[in-house]
Formats: sequence, C-alpha cells, structure tokens
Amino acid sequence: MENFQQEVLKRVQQHESVLCVGLDTVTDKIPSVLLGESNPQLAFNRMMIDTTQDLVCCYKINAAFYFVRGADGLTTLIETIDYAHARQIPVILDAKWGDIGHTAKFYARAAFETLKADAVTLNPYMGEDAIAPFRSYSSNCSFVLCFTSNKSRNDLETLPITQMDRPSTPLYHVVAEKIRDWNHAGNLGAVVGATAPEELASIRELLGPSIPILCPGIGAQGGDLEEVLWAGYSGPGSILINISRAILNASDGPDFAESARREAEMFVDQMKAFFLQIKEE
Amino acid sequence: MENFQQEVLKRVQQHESVLCVGLDTVTDKIPSVLLGESNPQLAFNRMMIDTTQDLVCCYKINAAFYFVRGADGLTTLIETIDYAHARQIPVILDAKWGDIGHTAKFYARAAFETLKADAVTLNPYMGEDAIAPFRSYSSNCSFVLCFTSNKSRNDLETLPITQMDRPSTPLYHVVAEKIRDWNHAGNLGAVVGATAPEELASIRELLGPSIPILCPGIGAQGGDLEEVLWAGYSGPGSILINISRAILNASDGPDFAESARREAEMFVDQMKAFFLQIKEE
Repeated sequence: MENFQQEVLKRVQQHESVLCVGLDTVTDKIPSVLLGESNPQLAFNRMMIDTTQDLVCCYKINAAFYFVRGADGLTTLIETIDYAHARQIPVILDAKWGDIGHTAKFYARAAFETLKADAVTLNPYMGEDAIAPFRSYSSNCSFVLCFTSNKSRNDLETLPITQMDRPSTPLYHVVAEKIRDWNHAGNLGAVVGATAPEELASIRELLGPSIPILCPGIGAQGGDLEEVLWAGYSGPGSILINISRAILNASDGPDFAESARREAEMFVDQMKAFFLQIKEE
Repeated sequence: MENFQQEVLKRVQQHESVLCVGLDTVTDKIPSVLLGESNPQLAFNRMMIDTTQDLVCCYKINAAFYFVRGADGLTTLIETIDYAHARQIPVILDAKWGDIGHTAKFYARAAFETLKADAVTLNPYMGEDAIAPFRSYSSNCSFVLCFTSNKSRNDLETLPITQMDRPSTPLYHVVAEKIRDWNHAGNLGAVVGATAPEELASIRELLGPSIPILCPGIGAQGGDLEEVLWAGYSGPGSILINISRAILNASDGPDFAESARREAEMFVDQMKAFFLQIKEE
C-alpha cells in the first residue's frame, strides 16, 4: 500500500466508517462448516474480509493468534495481509513490540518488509529507541500504547508522575506527550482503550488533532462507541475503532459471515449517525 | 525441560557459569564459510551451541532476528530451541510480549507450547493481566522488563512516581516491587540492564534474594561484568548474564567458532574469579 494514513483517510471518506475489524482468529472458535478447509484460520479470515470489506477503513491482525500455530500461523498471517491488500485495504499488525534499537530495526523490517503490514502497534516502556526504527518507514504508521483497555492498566499506566514545576500527571499523559514529541515524521499514532472515554478525551487534547488514535475495547470489552467518538474524534482519519470478538464471533453457525456483517453494519450505522450529528452542529 | 529455574541452577553449579549466550543471529553477519549451508542461520546457531554448551547455564533467543525471515525464521527458532534441548540446556525466548489477558493466553501458549521455550521476557506496561497467563505455567519462568540497558530508558523508566506517604521513587523501582508482588508462583524474574550496576543493586534489594535477574548489556553495550555480579548476585541461579554480539561476532572468519568459544571462556573465567572471591569472603 502507498501510505497507511492516506489510504485509511480515503476509505473513511468513501465508506463513512472508522471501523477496523480485528482478525484475532481463535482456531477453536472457527465455525464447524469451515473445519474441512485445508487452513480453516485462513478460510475464516478470507470470509471475514469478503463480508466486511466495504464496511472497514482497515484491518488489524494480532500476532498472538498466529504465532500460537508456529510457522503455519505466520504464513496464514502473511496470506491474510495479502488478501486484504488485494482489495486495497491496509492492515495493522498488532504485536506491541518494543526492544533496544539494534533489535527494533529487525522488528521494523519484519513488520513492514517481511509481513508487509502497513502499520504496527508498539510498547513505549523502553523509550524512543524502541520506536525510532519503525518511524523511519515514512509511509507506515506506528501506534504506541498509551492507555489500554484492560483492568490492570492501573498497575502502571495511571501512576502519578511528579516532574519539576508541574502538578502530578498520570504516566499515560506523559506517554501521550512523548508520542507527540516523537512524532517528527508525522507517522505515529496512539493506542487508547475505548473503555475510558474521559481519559481518551484528555489524551486527544495532549496529542493535538492530527495524531491518529487506535481504539480497541468496543464490543467484548464493553466500551461505548458513541461516547468514544465524541471523546476522541478530531477529523477524518483521527480515530480508528477496532472491534474483534463482537464481529468475528457474532455466530458460530453456518450463518457466521452474514451475522458478522450484520454486527459490523450496526457499528457502522452508529458511526454514520455520529458523522451526521457533527455535520449538523 | 523439567523446570527452568532448577535446570539453570543445576548448570550454574556444574559449570560455575552464569553465562547466557544470546543467539541474536543476524543473517548478514553469518561467516561466509556457512553461506553454502541450506539454512545458514540454523547452521550458525548449532555451531554456537556446540562450541559453548559446556560454558553456559542457558541460551536466550531474540524473536526479532527470526521473525524477520518469516515462516522459515520461525522454524529456525524452533529448531534452535530443539537443538539446545537435546543437550539439556534451557532456552529463554526474548520477545518482550505484553497484551491484554485474552491475548496473553495465546502468547503464553505460543511461547511455552508451540515454540517450547523454557522462559520468556515480558513487558510490564499493561500490568498484571499481561503477566498472569505466563505465570500459570509453573515450570517456566517469565522475566519482566524492569530497567533496560538502552539509552532512552530514561524516557519512561526513571520517571519519578509519588505515591501517598512515600518519597518519590523511579518507575523502575515500582516495577521491581510489582514483580515481587506478582511472584505468587515463584516463577517470575526481572530484566535489568548491565549498564547500570548501582540501579541493579537497588533493584536486587527490592526484589529480595530469590527472584532471578536476567542481565543483558555486557559486551557490545558496554556493561562491566564484575561490577554487575557484585551488584546483582545473591546466590546460585540469582543472576543470568546475557552476552550476544561479543560472542557471536567475535570473528567472521573460518575461526568464528573457536573465537566465540575463546570469548565465552574469557567471560566465564571472570565469573569463576568472582565465585572464588565470594567463597573466600
């Protein structure tokens, strides 16, 4: 793909959707009608792409669900990305990598050259060294974890930081500021969980309007879509709403593809309603 | 392998070595004499294991250098672990994973069942959810990043945290305390860079004597082995010194295996001298 952010923007405008379907395909949950296929995980992903391709701005694929199958899983991951690319749809590799610079160079090459992902998720704990090699791929985008959707995020992410002349700020605010400061090349984004709209709004303020936010946690994790859009949207391409299980596992019967589409349409309808509202304002 | 910590302990006592050779094999740096092999990366790893097997307490294999080769690389990673296991040597998968619980379960299964690693490195940013599924593999060990060896560690890891009734503490101290608190099952460790012996000593104090520390940063990154041992050693099995590039790339000529062994022996001699000194004290 040419440039992740431009391709996403094009699709957002074309389809009035900021939906990113997360292809976190658990092999045990693949509907039985597909189990006769030579590679049920790939067959399932292709059907998910077929049934949602006009409803999404991109896909996200989480490495865990493929690494667990070893080399075959990695091949499936690559073939799934290829399948989306054949339909001109960009793909985020969700791997949450973070390592020293020498190693991060190889992770960046793995993500953008070997696996051909268009964007990636990264972990900020080790600082800018872990981000820089990814950032030098100017057409790709790197979403850095900021405030996540899980329960134990409070273990570290909300710890109060006291710096110099400033009042105490939670760690995730410092991370948001780092993401903004590291964004020389205009190709960083932030991952912010959908389960905390207030915090999302405060992060949007720190990031400014142009840094895209990838927002998981709608559906199985309980985030509210409309609230999240009001909190984080700052123009087309500014927010990507990831939904995985609510769409992938909408049904495990032979109607799984239709059910997935119906579920995806429901979310996209909510997005369209939101866009209509902000146009009217 | 039966139990990572027990196997390492056995080897530490048998070989008087806390050396962990990091098999971070960069394909561009493989000596030309091996380039005719069908899989030069695997051939190189096997020769590294052959030449250092009586000098190490374990190996560490960093996923980046294998993922970059796609499915073939993942197969090489598995075959390298198998080769070490055939010699009864445990292997740490260095992947620095960290994700929500649902996903972490699949990462844990990937690490310990699919790839058959004995231990793994993890990232603490998302909190205990990201650690718990790994911890439930009771015979395996999970080393959580605490204070890393890279320059930009100061971006986040040293940020001053002010909690309640306590004086300000750096984030990596809070992480060390979390690792201690999360260690119900006695199978967590910490990753602490060798480039900061003072900080290492303070982390050892917080962790207590029994939590193992994996210590990268000796050699190419400039850490001093003796200082590190004085700072972090608290009994056999309490510290693992990872050295990668200084051994792997000791020579790129046809003598690369002998050179690697010579380099490894030099480090092990320093370890033996340290053990002699503490015995005499």
